[in-house]
Amino acid sequence: MAQAAGRQVLSGLRIVEMSAFIAAPLGGATLAALGADVICVDPPGGGIDIGRWPLHNGRSRYWAGLNQGKRSVTIDTRTEEGRRQVATLIAAPGEDGGILLTNLPSAGGSSYEQLSKLRPDLIMVLITGRRDGTAAVDYTVNAAVGFHVLPAWDAMTGFLAATAVLAAERHRRITGEGQLVELSLMDVGLAVAGHLGLIAEAILDEEPRGRFGNNVYGTFGRDFGTSDGRRVIVLALTPRQWRCLGQATGLTERFSELGARLGLDFREEGDRWRGRQQICELLASWIGGRGLADVRNLFDKHGVLWGPYQTFKQLVAEDPQASTANPLFEEVEHPGLGRYLTSGSPLRFGAAAAVSPRAAPELGHRRGVSRVRPGAHEVTGLRCSRVRSA
Amino acid sequence: MAQAAGRQVLSGLRIVEMSAFIAAPLGGATLAALGADVICVDPPGGGIDIGRWPLHNGRSRYWAGLNQGKRSVTIDTRTEEGRRQVATLIAAPGEDGGILLTNLPSAGGSSYEQLSKLRPDLIMVLITGRRDGTAAVDYTVNAAVGFHVLPAWDAMTGFLAATAVLAAERHRRITGEGQLVELSLMDVGLAVAGHLGLIAEAILDEEPRGRFGNNVYGTFGRDFGTSDGRRVIVLALTPRQWRCLGQATGLTERFSELGARLGLDFREEGDRWRGRQQICELLASWIGGRGLADVRNLFDKHGVLWGPYQTFKQLVAEDPQASTANPLFEEVEHPGLGRYLTSGSPLRFGAAAAVSPRAAPELGHRRGVSRVRPGAHEVTGLRCSRVRSA
Repeated sequence: MAQAAGRQVLSGLRIVEMSAFIAAPLGGATLAALGADVICVDPPGGGIDIGRWPLHNGRSRYWAGLNQGKRSVTIDTRTEEGRRQVATLIAAPGEDGGILLTNLPSAGGSSYEQLSKLRPDLIMVLITGRRDGTAAVDYTVNAAVGFHVLPAWDAMTGFLAATAVLAAERHRRITGEGQLVELSLMDVGLAVAGHLGLIAEAILDEEPRGRFGNNVYGTFGRDFGTSDGRRVIVLALTPRQWRCLGQATGLTERFSELGARLGLDFREEGDRWRGRQQICELLASWIGGRGLADVRNLFDKHGVLWGPYQTFKQLVAEDPQASTANPLFEEVEHPGLGRYLTSGSPLRFGAAAAVSPRAAPELGHRRGVSRVRPGAHEVTGLRCSRVRSA
Repeated sequence: MAQAAGRQVLSGLRIVEMSAFIAAPLGGATLAALGADVICVDPPGGGIDIGRWPLHNGRSRYWAGLNQGKRSVTIDTRTEEGRRQVATLIAAPGEDGGILLTNLPSAGGSSYEQLSKLRPDLIMVLITGRRDGTAAVDYTVNAAVGFHVLPAWDAMTGFLAATAVLAAERHRRITGEGQLVELSLMDVGLAVAGHLGLIAEAILDEEPRGRFGNNVYGTFGRDFGTSDGRRVIVLALTPRQWRCLGQATGLTERFSELGARLGLDFREEGDRWRGRQQICELLASWIGGRGLADVRNLFDKHGVLWGPYQTFKQLVAEDPQASTANPLFEEVEHPGLGRYLTSGSPLRFGAAAAVSPRAAPELGHRRGVSRVRPGAHEVTGLRCSRVRSA
């Protein structure tokens, strides 16, 4: 890799990671790939993702891709001693330490409040499915926001560019050096393909994985129609979610019979994948016999991981998450467009003031201009506009 | 927004942005939404995106969404005085200034090298399509990396979590305070929908935009089949890209005739959208009469914005970008899986050492363990493993 010698850009920064699924491990892998020391705390034998499909020689390429460049420590957090060890590791001293990245609300048995007693300047970044802490995964979020075409690579590159600005600013503070940081959309696409194990799969496997309709690969997930013409996505990525699905639909017994007949144990993700066709037949009939309101009621009551497919129209009409009931949003006046629901940052900082969502500026030559004050000296002759909050 | 009072997390940080399309403006909007002062430099009358679809009352909701919370200054960089003003603004003093975010390689007429003469510790984050600086956009990247299902919300949330870690670390350095930072997948989905103007559309428009097959909305872009059974995506988002497409295919004159007949000016993006069906008929016939190699040769020679649809198998077999010819990649040995192409960070820091891609660690209880040294004190009894680079 033809880059400058010297320190790595996040050299010294130490992050403890306790994570599952994709977002949190990818966050850690992103920091590790910039030179941060990322220490994963795993339960003995590995966590929920250690055997997640796709597999190769019985090992998870998914896990291998999302944990590149990290260190691992195994601790049994079911014991008091284990929980103490984790808390001590997270709150260990040093100005570059005391940072936890997790999607487990009570990481290793300790809340932010408890951990910050050990180290008052502790930083904890917590990823949840929904803002209220309830479960949502990529598939349910994707169903809820009705993108026809999503410029996903642009969005990822934009967020990574924000990371780049802050990493370079940290480097400048430590070393005094500025620098050119480059990134390309295509490299972001390739890196994500790598982290998700798909480049490995293309290299290691003779045959590509083939087609499997709308099923989520290697686990249980598919879309179903309701009796009133709506569609929902239903998933069971964990043994608990599988249990909830049986309870909500009253199909527990029929799932057991089916598993016995097929010689499959549906508590295992791989077996849910193998038996997906027969599981889907039972579920399609159950969901197809009910309206969306009924399905919603029963699924929510039993904690099923599911979500309705929504157009953007349905999202703003039906979903309280896309309303001012969600503190992410405020009503903002946009010049020439009108007043509408506008989001702030999805990042919520516990010790920093929120930034209210604001409109885009009028172009600088328009009315309402004020002078740019770029630091110590004013740049003569430049005028700069901003739309004021309503 | 129920968050702590006090300073905003990126308060004081000043970023000059010169950008177009989605990734770079979204990067700036991400930082602005955390309290950074983001100053957009636009040409008088606005840049290429000022009138980009979707429109409402003749104004771009797209532009409005991607530039939320920024300031704007208009400068004509075609004049020497304008270029001097831009360079002075970018290189303005202050430890929180001197940061440029752009996807224009020669932003306002100055390279990183030239700008850093004005301010040696200048930071410039430059987004390109491909690593070599050639054009690629979301659609061509998406065609090149063959995702069946892309967990895009997970990936965006992961990258945003990395931003959160660095923003909180900056806040701690300045104030001494730690904090809990929360984000949810669903809020990330909603915020991105907002930045792309789709929540505004659902609120402001009576009718949803309807279906339009595989066409890229509001501009020119669609997929086509070649005579040898491959598919390509072809786009013309700018007047130059439209000109190139005519030159590469020899269809310039037929496009002109078509435009005259329909009363459309295809140099205008909206008119290319209105005439998309007839344009596509001409192109489908031209591309369908040629093999992929011929199409590639002519399109690349004339600078057409295009890309082949590739499976992951085709990506690693045919595309030099997914090989060690791309410095993003190295061959890495993964325990239990084998040796394969593994990516480092897509971010390239000019003044910091590259981090070679590394495998995931063996779980901490396995062989090859070493002690964790978390800062000043060793945490007794914890063992931590890392796979060494091959």
